[in-house]
Amino acid sequence: MRIDGQPETLSLADLYAPIAADLQHARRLLADELISDHAFTSDLCRHVGQFHGKMLRPALLLLAAQAAGGVRPEHPVLAAVVELVHLATLVHDDVLDEADIRRRAATVNRLWGNQHAVLMGDFLYSHAFHLCSSLQSQYAARVVGQTAITMCEGEMMQVASRGNLALTEREYMDIIARKTAALVETCCHLGAQYAAADEATVRRLRDFGHALGLAFQIVDDLLDLTGQEAEVGKSLGRDVYEGELTLPVIHALRTASPGERTRLTTLLGQPDTTPLPPREGLAEGRTSTALTGARSASDPRRYRQIAALLRESDSLAYAESVARDHVETAKSALADLPPSPARDRLSAMADFVLARRQ
Amino acid sequence: MRIDGQPETLSLADLYAPIAADLQHARRLLADELISDHAFTSDLCRHVGQFHGKMLRPALLLLAAQAAGGVRPEHPVLAAVVELVHLATLVHDDVLDEADIRRRAATVNRLWGNQHAVLMGDFLYSHAFHLCSSLQSQYAARVVGQTAITMCEGEMMQVASRGNLALTEREYMDIIARKTAALVETCCHLGAQYAAADEATVRRLRDFGHALGLAFQIVDDLLDLTGQEAEVGKSLGRDVYEGELTLPVIHALRTASPGERTRLTTLLGQPDTTPLPPREGLAEGRTSTALTGARSASDPRRYRQIAALLRESDSLAYAESVARDHVETAKSALADLPPSPARDRLSAMADFVLARRQ
Repeated sequence: MRIDGQPETLSLADLYAPIAADLQHARRLLADELISDHAFTSDLCRHVGQFHGKMLRPALLLLAAQAAGGVRPEHPVLAAVVELVHLATLVHDDVLDEADIRRRAATVNRLWGNQHAVLMGDFLYSHAFHLCSSLQSQYAARVVGQTAITMCEGEMMQVASRGNLALTEREYMDIIARKTAALVETCCHLGAQYAAADEATVRRLRDFGHALGLAFQIVDDLLDLTGQEAEVGKSLGRDVYEGELTLPVIHALRTASPGERTRLTTLLGQPDTTPLPPREGLAEGRTSTALTGARSASDPRRYRQIAALLRESDSLAYAESVARDHVETAKSALADLPPSPARDRLSAMADFVLARRQ
Repeated sequence: MRIDGQPETLSLADLYAPIAADLQHARRLLADELISDHAFTSDLCRHVGQFHGKMLRPALLLLAAQAAGGVRPEHPVLAAVVELVHLATLVHDDVLDEADIRRRAATVNRLWGNQHAVLMGDFLYSHAFHLCSSLQSQYAARVVGQTAITMCEGEMMQVASRGNLALTEREYMDIIARKTAALVETCCHLGAQYAAADEATVRRLRDFGHALGLAFQIVDDLLDLTGQEAEVGKSLGRDVYEGELTLPVIHALRTASPGERTRLTTLLGQPDTTPLPPREGLAEGRTSTALTGARSASDPRRYRQIAALLRESDSLAYAESVARDHVETAKSALADLPPSPARDRLSAMADFVLARRQ
């Protein structure tokens, strides 16, 4: 995933330097929000606290604020709100994906079962909206509500298109625009809007966020195929096991020779029938033909064969080039903003997204 | 469940007469909210539309508004919001309970699987908050956000206490106060608050809603044990299968003779191990020791034995008397409100909750 010719990316500490204190403030607000008087809920909250590692979305919101005029008292609150929405989707995504590992820790569903994971996601969503409605203006609540609706639609489209080998690149881009780019755009949107920026500046930062979000998801999907589990910190091959077509696979199906295409189609369509080993923390032992993260460790042959087939093609390079194009679009949206350390960090963050290995 | 000596209850049409036009308005807002440009999501929305039969919560909100001073433009919006929150919890509850039937229709999880049901619940929550933030004041968003948090905590406490035969009546009341009474109280609270009622009136209507919500859940739990599936319109015996102790069972365990207690404990602790038949609409066949609604049809012996044991005791009558006490508390909270058709309907609604068979 390292792209030659890219500038050396900065560390997260460097990227976040201009907004370090505000980010710390957002972290405190988040921690305060995740206190429950119910002991068991508190345990779950502490566990979920491990998942927000990079705080990418809060950092983007605060950098956008600073690049657009300056951080105001609403911004750390909004930064905590977007992270809560993100955490809620992570917890529910892990239920949808039957994932076992998230940021090197066991998922909520893995440890406490799907029921608690569904409720914990609802709990995080509710906190996001509750915190958002503590602000004087309704603007953010309206935007965050619409963003959450859009994200659900994206996820529903994705689940509905599982196993659809005819998924087009355009449909894929529509799905990732909704499920991922919408929230990244909202971070930049709210950052700029609450800095009282003019309409053109808000528009530019929204465009930046949208393009960055698309690049982020394409890279994420690439890492699922080509990453190292130890580096990425979560189960890999999930898209393959869930029958979700991502950009390299869509490209390969479109451009491969008839022979390769048949081989790939056969591999993608092959059901996984090995029984799963019983997992701790679940009330029920289960035999399942579902495609799970657990299988990526226990029966990784199909996933490896698909990854190898894609490595032999130019489809990984194609997906990387699309991600790079979106990063360039993102960076060019920043061009007309007044120069500032925050603007430079946003630009560097785009490079970071492209070069990241986790 | 018919309680002798109670006044004859009115039909829903009679109960809702003073707010019929406003309720119709709320229904339209709800329908408008549940339109999606994504075809599949629209299908799900149409299906979920079947679940809001009685519109009990919107009706309570509108009646409280009218009893407290009069319905204003915000009220139909708020009525749609509380119904959306309620629908979201229903859809997620059916995932938690692995339920198959809801209001005589198949559940979302039964038809489309858990993944779509989790997302559909999130979608409904997001719409609730989005619609709520269309109001000028943040007050409702703040209250609804806090209510959603409380409801999640109640559900989490309930799931965490499954299989706990030592659950006390106090713990049970705390759970149902959070998972059910909180939203009913919020309906009455927002109805009164947005009618610009004075503090004492808001307090009285909140107290009414809280007590009514408690009675409602106790009756719901009684119907799960004693109802007729054809009348209730959903799978029965779910609490037993899920190991959730409800008021009659808690009372029986506390008061039964040692012999009966042993019999009941044995029945409650008995695992259900019959394999479930494969169900249509799921991508995967499954063998499971989970306790599901499907089993209530396929292997209802344990449930029937427990219900029979409770019928022989005075535990059903005890639970009914507790529900009746809460209905009386609710009605007495209305005593100091100025007389009005709406106040009379709220009082009749409390009787309706006690007498309902579905």
